[in-house]
Amino acid sequence: MSMSGVPSSGVDVFELGSEHEQVVFCNDRATGLKAIIAIHSTALGPALGGTRFYPYASTDDAIVDVLNLSRGMSYKNALAGLDLGGGKAVIIGDPAELKTEALLRAYGRFVQSLDGRYFTACDVGTFSEDMDHIARECDFVTGRTVAHGGAGDSSVLTAFGTFQGMRAAAEQVWGEPTLAGRTVGVAGVGKVGRHLVRHLIEDGASVVVTDVHAPSVEAIREQFPQVTAVATTEELVASEIDVYAPCAMGGAISDEVLDVLRASIICGAANNQLAHPGIEKQVEERGVLYAPDYCVNSGGVIQVADELEGFSFERAHQRATGIFETTRKVFELAKSDRVTTAEAADRLAERRMREVGRLRGIHLG
Amino acid sequence: MSMSGVPSSGVDVFELGSEHEQVVFCNDRATGLKAIIAIHSTALGPALGGTRFYPYASTDDAIVDVLNLSRGMSYKNALAGLDLGGGKAVIIGDPAELKTEALLRAYGRFVQSLDGRYFTACDVGTFSEDMDHIARECDFVTGRTVAHGGAGDSSVLTAFGTFQGMRAAAEQVWGEPTLAGRTVGVAGVGKVGRHLVRHLIEDGASVVVTDVHAPSVEAIREQFPQVTAVATTEELVASEIDVYAPCAMGGAISDEVLDVLRASIICGAANNQLAHPGIEKQVEERGVLYAPDYCVNSGGVIQVADELEGFSFERAHQRATGIFETTRKVFELAKSDRVTTAEAADRLAERRMREVGRLRGIHLG
Repeated sequence: MSMSGVPSSGVDVFELGSEHEQVVFCNDRATGLKAIIAIHSTALGPALGGTRFYPYASTDDAIVDVLNLSRGMSYKNALAGLDLGGGKAVIIGDPAELKTEALLRAYGRFVQSLDGRYFTACDVGTFSEDMDHIARECDFVTGRTVAHGGAGDSSVLTAFGTFQGMRAAAEQVWGEPTLAGRTVGVAGVGKVGRHLVRHLIEDGASVVVTDVHAPSVEAIREQFPQVTAVATTEELVASEIDVYAPCAMGGAISDEVLDVLRASIICGAANNQLAHPGIEKQVEERGVLYAPDYCVNSGGVIQVADELEGFSFERAHQRATGIFETTRKVFELAKSDRVTTAEAADRLAERRMREVGRLRGIHLG
Repeated sequence: MSMSGVPSSGVDVFELGSEHEQVVFCNDRATGLKAIIAIHSTALGPALGGTRFYPYASTDDAIVDVLNLSRGMSYKNALAGLDLGGGKAVIIGDPAELKTEALLRAYGRFVQSLDGRYFTACDVGTFSEDMDHIARECDFVTGRTVAHGGAGDSSVLTAFGTFQGMRAAAEQVWGEPTLAGRTVGVAGVGKVGRHLVRHLIEDGASVVVTDVHAPSVEAIREQFPQVTAVATTEELVASEIDVYAPCAMGGAISDEVLDVLRASIICGAANNQLAHPGIEKQVEERGVLYAPDYCVNSGGVIQVADELEGFSFERAHQRATGIFETTRKVFELAKSDRVTTAEAADRLAERRMREVGRLRGIHLG
């Protein structure tokens, strides 16, 4: 086969996505839709993961992102005990320019064409109102508006779950599952962080916060005058805190941070906290307990998954309480297997995909 | 988004496949399955096209091939008057090493996951027996074995349709829709070519043949002693023939062939006869009438498409007879629009996709 005339500049989907089941490129010229849906695993059920609408610089950037994100969803959904596999989708382009009812509905038809192997939800650049449009062409949508039976703001249970994970970490380090009397540094007090601060205050902790967005800090200080604010994340991690809670961008646990960190626990709601592979070992060597990000921040996906049964806040809240127990199990496995907590979380997720996934091989007639 | 660590060496699916609706990468590590399903257009109905099993040198080679082939199927199916869109699939690897029941069934599950947007069939490296395996996991398969309701050998109607197209070309050039008294050079007397020779002999033509595979030539000369055989395609095209019928590999109409060709008509069953874009204009300038390949060789797809309704040879044969009329229309449009016959075929196909495709916009309640 000749490649003459075709410019060379891309990633090999089969190579980079060697673990993935299916990667679907969706194109609709009339609306300008260019979407990629990646299904990493359906071992536990249909793949669930949000749709990110983002102006990727290239198709290759979009492929790399959707492959990473969908793999992460397999692990998050498995560890959260959901009957859902891992998937994710990206729509390439600036949502401010490109997002229209027609484009969202064209996208909905492509999600529909996968016949339930992939369920979508909100992510960066997409909102519940967008899910409502997608749902006009598609049965496999969650994260819808409250008016359409949706679960509403998923940051509530994300924060609650992170707090449960932090309690499990406190128990591990100090013997009691409480943050009372401890100082917690929360980096990022947006939608999720501000709910986390409330849980911490109610539990009797002292809280130090920072956020690049000044009004968010002001809103917190107005609600909880006892909260201390510092100017930067650098200042926060170097201060006298017992727990560091990254609740903003990814890559929060970097070599620079570890050099100055005084906390005994890292536990926050941010995604992809490990700045590079291997840094989880350095965290451990410094005697810091890391509560794996995707373990403690799964309250959000628990909430949108609940919506698939007809949303019940009580049921979802109950399930998010279970993050305490799951985080505990991660710490126990890390001890017994002598691995990092990050590795332990992966092993628990993989074990569940393997053991529960295998059950489908039992024919039911 | 960072691309660090990812080797750069590929094609951009959205760029090269800018006309395509959907491109699906399917991966199953346990069986070694790596398949790409390309859906070019579903304007007229579900995409139909075969599955090619081939040891592509790279994923990129496979992408380029499946995008080209699926586009070709849209045009072929549209011009053939079928209620089918265009698609194609490739499985990467050597079928002799990789093909197993498990791999074919894994592939079947992926075809099934598209819920009827794509129907598969045989192509290079796949056979009716393979379609039977695929059908054990999938409802959207045609080209099955006769024992399973399949249409059987599709070369019968491919040859018959090509003969009908040749009759239309004869009428255009010599005033009568017959090859009686003409000399036809058939390059390639494999499955399709030998049936074509029979039609030509029965119609009263003289036939000259060539084939790289000597036993094929011997078989023909045994059946029809009046047939002349020449050693090479070069010799065939340079000899005193009225019609040149390429029935073997693609790229049969090259600059070298045109330099020596004496025929008035080119009409054969091979796919992708034009060796490069623009050569169809040189054909016309030399006063040679080209019956577009995908117009005259659509008898095969007509046959496998018929199987979707429960195969009737009579019905499929009747439909393949229509290739005479379709080829006539292509010649008429070429005249009235003052374009090449290749361009006229494309225009007819595009017109049908546009006009019939539009009807779906009429809501039926």
